[in-house]
Amino acid sequence: MNPIALITDFGVADWFAGEMKGAMLSACPGSTIVDITHDIPPGDIRCAAFTLAACYRTFPQGTVFCVVVDPGVGSRRKAIAAHTGSYLFVGPDNGVLSWALSREAPAAVRTIDNSDFFRGAAVGATFHGRDIFGPAAARCARGAPFISIGAEMTGYVTLPFPHPVVTDASITAEVLAVDRFGNAVTAIGKGLLPRLKTSVVKLCCGEICCAISCGAFFQEVPRGEPVCYPGSAGYLEIGINGGSAAQRFGLRAGDCIELQLH
Amino acid sequence: MNPIALITDFGVADWFAGEMKGAMLSACPGSTIVDITHDIPPGDIRCAAFTLAACYRTFPQGTVFCVVVDPGVGSRRKAIAAHTGSYLFVGPDNGVLSWALSREAPAAVRTIDNSDFFRGAAVGATFHGRDIFGPAAARCARGAPFISIGAEMTGYVTLPFPHPVVTDASITAEVLAVDRFGNAVTAIGKGLLPRLKTSVVKLCCGEICCAISCGAFFQEVPRGEPVCYPGSAGYLEIGINGGSAAQRFGLRAGDCIELQLH
Amino acid sequence: MNPIALITDFGVADWFAGEMKGAMLSACPGSTIVDITHDIPPGDIRCAAFTLAACYRTFPQGTVFCVVVDPGVGSRRKAIAAHTGSYLFVGPDNGVLSWALSREAPAAVRTIDNSDFFRGAAVGATFHGRDIFGPAAARCARGAPFISIGAEMTGYVTLPFPHPVVTDASITAEVLAVDRFGNAVTAIGKGLLPRLKTSVVKLCCGEICCAISCGAFFQEVPRGEPVCYPGSAGYLEIGINGGSAAQRFGLRAGDCIELQLH
Repeated sequence: MNPIALITDFGVADWFAGEMKGAMLSACPGSTIVDITHDIPPGDIRCAAFTLAACYRTFPQGTVFCVVVDPGVGSRRKAIAAHTGSYLFVGPDNGVLSWALSREAPAAVRTIDNSDFFRGAAVGATFHGRDIFGPAAARCARGAPFISIGAEMTGYVTLPFPHPVVTDASITAEVLAVDRFGNAVTAIGKGLLPRLKTSVVKLCCGEICCAISCGAFFQEVPRGEPVCYPGSAGYLEIGINGGSAAQRFGLRAGDCIELQLH
Repeated sequence: MNPIALITDFGVADWFAGEMKGAMLSACPGSTIVDITHDIPPGDIRCAAFTLAACYRTFPQGTVFCVVVDPGVGSRRKAIAAHTGSYLFVGPDNGVLSWALSREAPAAVRTIDNSDFFRGAAVGATFHGRDIFGPAAARCARGAPFISIGAEMTGYVTLPFPHPVVTDASITAEVLAVDRFGNAVTAIGKGLLPRLKTSVVKLCCGEICCAISCGAFFQEVPRGEPVCYPGSAGYLEIGINGGSAAQRFGLRAGDCIELQLH
Repeated sequence: MNPIALITDFGVADWFAGEMKGAMLSACPGSTIVDITHDIPPGDIRCAAFTLAACYRTFPQGTVFCVVVDPGVGSRRKAIAAHTGSYLFVGPDNGVLSWALSREAPAAVRTIDNSDFFRGAAVGATFHGRDIFGPAAARCARGAPFISIGAEMTGYVTLPFPHPVVTDASITAEVLAVDRFGNAVTAIGKGLLPRLKTSVVKLCCGEICCAISCGAFFQEVPRGEPVCYPGSAGYLEIGINGGSAAQRFGLRAGDCIELQLH
């Protein structure tokens, strides 16, 4: 039985995440369920798309990812499942799976419309994590044939990725996420790292401009100093040794930063 | 081995929830433990009673629910276990189990006084989640005979349920819970829904009165508009498409709302 | 397969805790992973050291504890594993394991330098929870021979424990932790409890001095009254029945309190 990994915006104070697991265990006793996070900000599809893309490749092949950030629940947005060579992704068709799927292409995508994959009880209009996504993910993890989950689709909703703007002199990029430590994950992928040829570049965010060292880890710079380094999710990150770059530079997800290269 | 589902007010920042699981694994290696929530506000018996009642029926038959919100720990309040046809409930006898039990009646209720069900080490006076409730739940989940857990009881502490006041013209009801999305779960159960015959009613909370659509899900109303709909827990809820009803209307658990029906 | 218990400062809003579990499941499918907490304040080694020491003995023998509070990640601080008669501890060599190890001495300590214990993919410089500690813990839990994990060490970094200062008239002690309920766990261990011979002592914290009952549990004193009692972690705690001692007395971890004994 393959593990099922969950990303939702349900929080952990209410009963939703627990109830979804109850529905999964009812569908498939003995499911192995792993919480990635339930603390996606309510309705923040982009944050969920990034979170999934940041970590799914660390999971074992065969893992089923169930992502439920679903402000359109009950409306005509589709429930979808996507199979790649290595993983299976389940969630609403609102872009939440698209950053992971774009890396795993080609993926076979199907609507989830076979009610054998749903929760046994009636399907409501407001909690498809419990009634559709969770049970469908659990059945897939136990080996239900993907082909029987529903009709094949030729496309799915994609969320545009904020590709950096690169010139000879600079890279301008969005902040994809700010983590608990105040590190800012930029949209600057590994392929662009060779552009940072010098050991110090200039970082501009809003009205703040400062020199920043290019390093590999925090303690390479003195305590309290900023450093940009290749982060664990595969993107350049901006951090401060022993401090919060988000706080220092006023950075939030969606903000823009500029690196002046010389 | 049946799953064990946990509801506590321990939070997740301290070691309590983890230590309770350690005690459960010590009592029964291989226990399947599911967190419903550990974020019940400290000592809030009513919130825990509602949380349990809201979700237990989604879990597989045989699930053991262990609910530890226990401000009277160490005092003479009893530790109890209740067996219904489908589930087993374990917790302090302070009302925390009563809203679920009232739906599952008749239930056989016993005190937990057989120390074979306790943690092996000495039982302390301040952490019965670790020393009594967790280990007892784990032993029950592995099939220890319920009859041996302790003496039969003829009653248990019940928490009064705030039944709505219904007239021809209105329904007045308490807010049972406010969820992470700002939706307010009212005490108006499914049986009262046929009373909402019109597609728009009038909602009054405190000094605010406004028209509210009766719908099935959020996106049935324009963004920013309120909607009342049958919620996933079996009660009428008040929400706002893309917003927080709790914030808009200043609603908290325990507050009263009135629906004027025509 | 032995359980693995986790203590980190990753929080639960980001993908780090989930991704570490993905790495553990990739290393050892079917790992039993228990969260103690991921909410250690970022970089707070002392809080993690206390949290581990407070609860590890409740877990079954053979449990592998993986503690990742690691501000020096990427630097030359060592990754270590320590085997005692009963448990295995994995983490950075920064003191985070030392309060537990000092109770379990003698322990065999080794550096984790055999890359067979690492994550299969390349080891990065910023996330050794995913790349080293998690996979190593998972392999140990499945029975990989401890001796092969790396070279034996003769010492490890220890964090000084704030031993109370005891006179005939008073005990002065640090607050080790403040829990969710506002109870303050002091560094006064069980061995000192016989010193509290009277049923009421005088508590001084900062400029506040007041009488405090010595009891066994909260409801032994009237609601709103302070009580000091032997806590579940093995230390004297200061609490308030139905309230927060931390708030009343302005207590935080690291603060000093004095108990005047007569």
